[in-house]
Amino acid sequence: MGTDRTTVRREAHKQVEDQATLKAILARAIIAYVAISIDNQPFVLPVACAPFGDELLLHGSTASRLFKALASGLPACVNITLVDALVLARTSFDSSMQYHSLMALGTARVIPDREKLSALNALTEHLFPERAKELREPSSKEMKATSVLAFPLNEISIKVSNSYVHDAQSEPSTNIWAGVIPILSTYGEPIPSEDLKSGIEIPEYISLWPKNRI
Amino acid sequence: MGTDRTTVRREAHKQVEDQATLKAILARAIIAYVAISIDNQPFVLPVACAPFGDELLLHGSTASRLFKALASGLPACVNITLVDALVLARTSFDSSMQYHSLMALGTARVIPDREKLSALNALTEHLFPERAKELREPSSKEMKATSVLAFPLNEISIKVSNSYVHDAQSEPSTNIWAGVIPILSTYGEPIPSEDLKSGIEIPEYISLWPKNRI
Repeated sequence: MGTDRTTVRREAHKQVEDQATLKAILARAIIAYVAISIDNQPFVLPVACAPFGDELLLHGSTASRLFKALASGLPACVNITLVDALVLARTSFDSSMQYHSLMALGTARVIPDREKLSALNALTEHLFPERAKELREPSSKEMKATSVLAFPLNEISIKVSNSYVHDAQSEPSTNIWAGVIPILSTYGEPIPSEDLKSGIEIPEYISLWPKNRI
Repeated sequence: MGTDRTTVRREAHKQVEDQATLKAILARAIIAYVAISIDNQPFVLPVACAPFGDELLLHGSTASRLFKALASGLPACVNITLVDALVLARTSFDSSMQYHSLMALGTARVIPDREKLSALNALTEHLFPERAKELREPSSKEMKATSVLAFPLNEISIKVSNSYVHDAQSEPSTNIWAGVIPILSTYGEPIPSEDLKSGIEIPEYISLWPKNRI
């Protein structure tokens, strides 16, 4: 699925062409970094995202410059990187991070009206799992104000670094602790809306939301 | 500090021109998304970063295409976005996220040799606070293999979304829980390196590392 443009040349052993890895990254990601270029000046912005079949949904305001540019068919690049851990070697040079990183090149597709409701529902389901069933459907005014694009994932590069400490025990610093420190995402204590009617408890499905996001 | 190129046009109330906010974002970020453009095709990649005076340090392999392109003076864009919370409104349209986002445009400066050691130490100190004192200095071979660039932060746009639920209580769905769910980064249980000498405990300074990163 890679091309010459997406071949990882640095540390190519970290490149894995693996649909399962792609799916795992997309399942965790709620933000994609989307880059476009105007007169050779790149711009990169964060965008809420969700998997959608073989594509990646990108969602923003119809009025945004980024979404207008993407919708016009400008070449774009999407990167999603999940940092999993800090790797503490016995030298700063060998210290690193564990991560999953996806880069995709391509041109966004404007979701046609007949597909828009299912795309918006897929976004809500991904960002706030199980919540869509509680919410009313988006109104046609809300749909018009929302730009939903599908970005192709057929020209991609995936890089996974899951290595442990690999510095040399011969270092003079062997009395230094070395190892891996996982970075986890957790949800903090929910803060109810000020105008919440009394007696409304936080729904149980929220406790099932996937951890270790972003 | 903004220019016409970095003026936030969408939801401009979220733009804050505030050095304290800039510093707070840089203090938490360990990864920056760096975009360049080649023949109008943008590429965006994650890069380990650290604040360095008024600039942002970017650090990678001397041999990487991205760092070669950046060092050659190509126009670039850097984005750092910290997602702080999910905002669960009573409609999907009003649901959103709280975040701090920084976008900077500019051209990277190659750190000259005489400044390189202090730049590398600043990176180590930022990514692994208090650890540099335990580690030997980088060798000249290691320094040569590492590209360290400084990215200017004088053409920037900062967008902060810290709003709470602002949908209408008039929604038919007022029996739905609404509120904010913070997303926190925490460190998991450290995994000692397999070759760690017995008796070496994890240093206390690691417990002081800043939480809520990335």
